[in-house]
Amino acid sequence: MVQPILYSLFREGEFRQLLETVKKLHPADIVDTLREFPSEEQKEFFFLLPHEQSAAILQEMELPEATAVLAQMPPGAAAEILKRMYSDEAVDILAELPKEKAAKLLTMMKDAGRELEELLLYEEDTSGGLMATEFVAVAENQTVGGTLAYLRRISPSTENAYYIYVLNRDKKLVGVVSLRELVVAPLATRVGQIMHKDVVKVPENLDQEEVARVFDKYGFLALPVVDKKGRLMGVITVDDVMEIAEEEATEDMQKTASVTPLKTSYKNTGIWTLYSKRIGWLMGLILVNLVSSGVIAAFEETLSAVITLAFFIPLLIGTGGNTGCQSATLVVRALVTGDVKLGSWLQTLSKELAVGLLLGATLGGAGWVLGLFRGGFHLGLVIGLTMLSIVLLTNLVGMTVPFILTRLRLDPAVASSPLITTIADAMGLLIYFSIAAVIL
Amino acid sequence: MVQPILYSLFREGEFRQLLETVKKLHPADIVDTLREFPSEEQKEFFFLLPHEQSAAILQEMELPEATAVLAQMPPGAAAEILKRMYSDEAVDILAELPKEKAAKLLTMMKDAGRELEELLLYEEDTSGGLMATEFVAVAENQTVGGTLAYLRRISPSTENAYYIYVLNRDKKLVGVVSLRELVVAPLATRVGQIMHKDVVKVPENLDQEEVARVFDKYGFLALPVVDKKGRLMGVITVDDVMEIAEEEATEDMQKTASVTPLKTSYKNTGIWTLYSKRIGWLMGLILVNLVSSGVIAAFEETLSAVITLAFFIPLLIGTGGNTGCQSATLVVRALVTGDVKLGSWLQTLSKELAVGLLLGATLGGAGWVLGLFRGGFHLGLVIGLTMLSIVLLTNLVGMTVPFILTRLRLDPAVASSPLITTIADAMGLLIYFSIAAVIL
Repeated sequence: MVQPILYSLFREGEFRQLLETVKKLHPADIVDTLREFPSEEQKEFFFLLPHEQSAAILQEMELPEATAVLAQMPPGAAAEILKRMYSDEAVDILAELPKEKAAKLLTMMKDAGRELEELLLYEEDTSGGLMATEFVAVAENQTVGGTLAYLRRISPSTENAYYIYVLNRDKKLVGVVSLRELVVAPLATRVGQIMHKDVVKVPENLDQEEVARVFDKYGFLALPVVDKKGRLMGVITVDDVMEIAEEEATEDMQKTASVTPLKTSYKNTGIWTLYSKRIGWLMGLILVNLVSSGVIAAFEETLSAVITLAFFIPLLIGTGGNTGCQSATLVVRALVTGDVKLGSWLQTLSKELAVGLLLGATLGGAGWVLGLFRGGFHLGLVIGLTMLSIVLLTNLVGMTVPFILTRLRLDPAVASSPLITTIADAMGLLIYFSIAAVIL
Repeated sequence: MVQPILYSLFREGEFRQLLETVKKLHPADIVDTLREFPSEEQKEFFFLLPHEQSAAILQEMELPEATAVLAQMPPGAAAEILKRMYSDEAVDILAELPKEKAAKLLTMMKDAGRELEELLLYEEDTSGGLMATEFVAVAENQTVGGTLAYLRRISPSTENAYYIYVLNRDKKLVGVVSLRELVVAPLATRVGQIMHKDVVKVPENLDQEEVARVFDKYGFLALPVVDKKGRLMGVITVDDVMEIAEEEATEDMQKTASVTPLKTSYKNTGIWTLYSKRIGWLMGLILVNLVSSGVIAAFEETLSAVITLAFFIPLLIGTGGNTGCQSATLVVRALVTGDVKLGSWLQTLSKELAVGLLLGATLGGAGWVLGLFRGGFHLGLVIGLTMLSIVLLTNLVGMTVPFILTRLRLDPAVASSPLITTIADAMGLLIYFSIAAVIL
């Protein structure tokens, strides 16, 4: 919900009322409204707010926008605001800022800065890069009543208070209790007695896609991150992971279309960047296309003799490309989501062999009719047979390439529609002219 | 983690120890292990478990598998297990069962059955279809201490206890308090004083993709669903929504490859179903391909005169298809994720016009060199100009079709790579031969 009232209060200088309104709104709604503010006035708006509010709003903004806002602020204010943000969000912004600026802010933040500096060492798209260091941990022999009293005293921020982690003397993570379980347990019970001992946890350097899979499997709200010695380093919350699934899907789709994944949203990506993410693939695919040209050149005589053959080139190689694109996309997605495992390539092969035969028979029949109609018995035979072979083969190519890429530890999504289509073109032409040369 | 010990305990008849082990494991891990059981033995395994455990495990299984397990059970046991499942999960299974079987189970479940019957009336992919009816609600004038005591008494299941909803006398939803806020508030305070009054809520029939967007925006763990009168009907939890993002992305990718979305996972989809989800599109695209054939037939004379033109057909229409596929995928994804809105078609058009010009100039240059090299000055000119025009135009077609589809309230993902590629083929050939006829 955009809140037009915010902007009019701001323009009319009704600052006291403005602050009252901001306090009542959800930060995510304020972010929507801020998009309507001219950028110069956005800056002034943040000047008016208490640091707490600024921190809450910046956390809800997209990273490039939040970084831009923070970069314009006087360093003193920026440091204070960063201190009040969740550490995972603060680190993301600091990583985007110019190195010198980030270093200066970290120094100004003193203790909090040193903690963030450690978080900055993790790769952005790993469990360590996702985790926040705000979590609630108690000792095993603490009572339920004592833990509740402790919670009342520290009044933790919402994001990380749903699970209470239990540590032993060496700071090793030995158990977890949900806030709900704590609330319904007798007050005198020791936490060690009601905690779950088999804590699902992840190591510090797990890829974010794997982290998302763990969340998806167990349906947890938060997941602890431990170091090699089993000590609790931080906690990843489900809201950070929700974004990953969408981000990764967007990246995969871009790869599927032979676009090098954009780092920012499409809207925020400039013309030159869009160009550079696309041109390399298009130029590379031209090289593959030259194989197709070569095939036609090699069969120049056949083609000159029966020019009708040219009519069917788009139909045959087009259908081949479409078939390969279908099987590649189905298999890439199944591999990425873990629906199909690398080990089951043989089952997948036989499945796609069967599907390809059915598709090939149907489309081959259609091609036969079209060829018969256009150029008589022999042409019908050529088109029908070619269609059957092309469909069968491109279907298997589309299915196999993602498996090979996965086996080579490459991203299966590189088996993009344009790549598969272009390979299908070259193969299709070779099959077409070979069959034509024999029959005609 | 697969737990091989479970299976050996089961085979050796060590049932007491088996039950002990099951109790300690997370249901999601048991599901992993069960996949290794032969299906006949799976059935026996569930016979051994108490209903509570069976319910917890079935909740973690994929829908078709869970339905298959439940369908094999004696109706009495099935009804008892369904009663112990979260209502949203139970309803999903009931919707998959044969009508008669479901009706019988609902009758056996008595009161719980009647509640589920109401949930069954909602469309599966709407907020009503996602929500569960297990939630905690208290009256405005209840105290914090009273609410905590109430929680201890009813000991709610984990999934829905993180927010406590506040209702007025007419059962209308007037506020919400998180469990964390409740725990840290003074015991004598009235819930009405600490509750958030601007509750973010969704109506009963909101599309699940919209529901996921609300979760994504606010980062909530649960979202209340209200009827037209504002009464609380149920609650959707974030774990149900995590799956949606992945499901929707998979469906979108399948559409992007001209595959009618599969209802089940690729692994669980049979050969005939795969065939039927693909053949319609492939046959339909053949019709579009016939336009390409028609274009070549119309320019038969030009082609016979200069057979070298045929060499460049795959190169030119291939590059056109690849370009259109890139822009279509970028724009479809931006529209689906809400990154680009329908209203900003003009900005997108001018952006893609610029990107297309840059791509066209580069690829046109490459085409010019290839043509020059193969057939001299005039051919170079033809190939270069054709490449420029095709890239520019297919880029715009790829960008425009998703906008038009969205405007017509159709799914933009129908602008699939095969469709755009096939349209690009026909357009490309027309441009190619027109330019060739003029220059050569």
